[in-house]
Amino acid sequence: MNDKSVRLGIIGFGAQGGVYAGFVAEGKVKGMSLGAICDIDPAKKRLAEEQHPGVAFYDDYIAMLDSGDVDAVVTTVPHYLHPEMTIAAIGKGIHTLTEKPAGVYTKQVEQMNEFAAAHPETTFAIMFNQRTNPVYTDLKDLIDSGELGRLRHTSWIITTWWRPQAYYDQSEWRATWGGEGGGVLVNQAPHQLDLWQWLAGTPQKVFAKLAFGFQRDIATEDEVNALVDFGDGATGHFLTSTSDIAGTDRLEMLFDAGKIVVDASTKVTITRLTQDERSISDSMSVADVGRLFKGEMNTADLFSTEVKEYESVWGAQHVDVLTNFAAHINDGTPLIADGAEGINGVRLASGMQLSAWTGREIDLVDFPAEEYLRELNQRIEAEGKYPTRS
Amino acid sequence: MNDKSVRLGIIGFGAQGGVYAGFVAEGKVKGMSLGAICDIDPAKKRLAEEQHPGVAFYDDYIAMLDSGDVDAVVTTVPHYLHPEMTIAAIGKGIHTLTEKPAGVYTKQVEQMNEFAAAHPETTFAIMFNQRTNPVYTDLKDLIDSGELGRLRHTSWIITTWWRPQAYYDQSEWRATWGGEGGGVLVNQAPHQLDLWQWLAGTPQKVFAKLAFGFQRDIATEDEVNALVDFGDGATGHFLTSTSDIAGTDRLEMLFDAGKIVVDASTKVTITRLTQDERSISDSMSVADVGRLFKGEMNTADLFSTEVKEYESVWGAQHVDVLTNFAAHINDGTPLIADGAEGINGVRLASGMQLSAWTGREIDLVDFPAEEYLRELNQRIEAEGKYPTRS
Repeated sequence: MNDKSVRLGIIGFGAQGGVYAGFVAEGKVKGMSLGAICDIDPAKKRLAEEQHPGVAFYDDYIAMLDSGDVDAVVTTVPHYLHPEMTIAAIGKGIHTLTEKPAGVYTKQVEQMNEFAAAHPETTFAIMFNQRTNPVYTDLKDLIDSGELGRLRHTSWIITTWWRPQAYYDQSEWRATWGGEGGGVLVNQAPHQLDLWQWLAGTPQKVFAKLAFGFQRDIATEDEVNALVDFGDGATGHFLTSTSDIAGTDRLEMLFDAGKIVVDASTKVTITRLTQDERSISDSMSVADVGRLFKGEMNTADLFSTEVKEYESVWGAQHVDVLTNFAAHINDGTPLIADGAEGINGVRLASGMQLSAWTGREIDLVDFPAEEYLRELNQRIEAEGKYPTRS
Repeated sequence: MNDKSVRLGIIGFGAQGGVYAGFVAEGKVKGMSLGAICDIDPAKKRLAEEQHPGVAFYDDYIAMLDSGDVDAVVTTVPHYLHPEMTIAAIGKGIHTLTEKPAGVYTKQVEQMNEFAAAHPETTFAIMFNQRTNPVYTDLKDLIDSGELGRLRHTSWIITTWWRPQAYYDQSEWRATWGGEGGGVLVNQAPHQLDLWQWLAGTPQKVFAKLAFGFQRDIATEDEVNALVDFGDGATGHFLTSTSDIAGTDRLEMLFDAGKIVVDASTKVTITRLTQDERSISDSMSVADVGRLFKGEMNTADLFSTEVKEYESVWGAQHVDVLTNFAAHINDGTPLIADGAEGINGVRLASGMQLSAWTGREIDLVDFPAEEYLRELNQRIEAEGKYPTRS
């Protein structure tokens, strides 16, 4: 194993970039050291020199990529910039860990993915830190084992993203069409949009109801209730909001031979049927049905239930993703989240927005990327604060 | 108060009709006695004479209505027949308690409602026995008090309706288009379709994914995942299925100033905000947001939580509805469920089916009743077992 230190460049020394720089500088990330920091804000230069004396600072990320100071970068910058910065970095042979979401619209993310695919020697990863949460890695292993069979339906109510008005008022670009490209679907919920598809698979269609500036003075969506179709009768439901103070986090997944319920991302209830549900159904007689209706059939004999409690680790595990990123560069350790997978969450979020804008169910397999971009640009133009996108 | 005994006629001496006859004969229903029993099956005549000797039996419900033996009837017959029997009875001045669902298609239910409205002197009620469940009556009172404000979103996952194949194979007409007019939405879920709209209000639009014969060899739907729009940004989600052995029953409702979660129809968690959520949001400073993100803000100070446990009474309370029906006839006591309200559940169920058949979102305010009936009749014709409807 090659344990050379990957020198990381931080593009964007804001809250998140500052946290990552700290992790690396403190030696928490095996196989990685802090190579350089970049930010366009002069105030951040003073902060970087104070916190990380001796580490090179750049106000132009291209100059940092060309400096020879960094082997890899992380893009802790507004979402719209992720694809173009990733393309620039990979084009210069610099390994890239892009922040989530991968971008705002699928056209730009596809360009990024195509470019990265053409440069397989350069590592391309994405910061889906929740994929290292043991709650979800254990479920991923269970589902991938095939023990529970195929998915029948799923619902995720994830309203623990409460954000008061002052949060939105902090930044000009926050929850605008031109600056951020969306609301809760683009900023808060991408974690669950990724985890959900990682566990359940990618849906084929989506129909969604979004409310824009519903409970906050913002342009974008702060309330989402969506229905997806995985094909072959399997469906899903996704509900998120930024105005539920006593937020709910509840994931339910029904499979052919079992069921998973996750409460608060810490309590997992796994139901395992004694056999495939359809076989159980077929084995019942008319007399059994009579007993069922009289309450004399103990259906609990037909399954076992396991309850597992986990520590709350929400928002953590960035160190794990950074360490895995370095290990992949150094010795080819498989990535926790390949950068190319970031498009799934972007496509689903964009599909929900496009469905709400048009009133149509949206095809996610043959996604109307140009139509989405036209609709997005209309909103950016009406907003009048930022340039349209292409 | 006039305590004269209302003489009840049972139309349809099957499982449910037999239970009601028993309640009345045993004196469990105040103000009501058993007047007569009707069934077209000769075997039921022997059973009725055995169980209720001396009670008149008819094989023709019109003859029973004309006999002078009954002041009121209950229609424990296949769903399609509820409207025509109710119209016949009310036309003869016989008070009618119709079984749920009120019918299969809104056109017939509207005819029934219009006819009943023209005969206000004759009582018209519907057997929504779950409206007497203290879990839901307490919630209805709380919501109607206005304390929690307006609804923002709701979700009901109700998959406790597990039915094995033998259940469907028991009766020729079960889960057919011509005999029953639907599956889980028409037979099992009408309780929740009523309770949900009783508590949340009637939605304006619905988009739904249904799977027909998904996990059972039946023609109709056994899996439903639906999204409704109440207007003004408020939305709802409804998930039901007959193939989840370890079924879930979980209702969530978010309001402007609080939240309700009901687990298993027995555990109610009520969250009361200290003030309207938007006012709380507006009162937060940027410093508060900083504390929130550092985990230093105790959002639990902003609300109180009450947990109430109830006894399980699922499937009971038919006696309460029968008693209320008699009391309304005798002294005008307000009805638990006015018969005219039965259309809400029928319209929502039909809207879900029509949405699934057409792929469109369906307008529930200006419901396309004729289109629904055409689509239903196409399925009845293809099935080839029962006459089409008009």
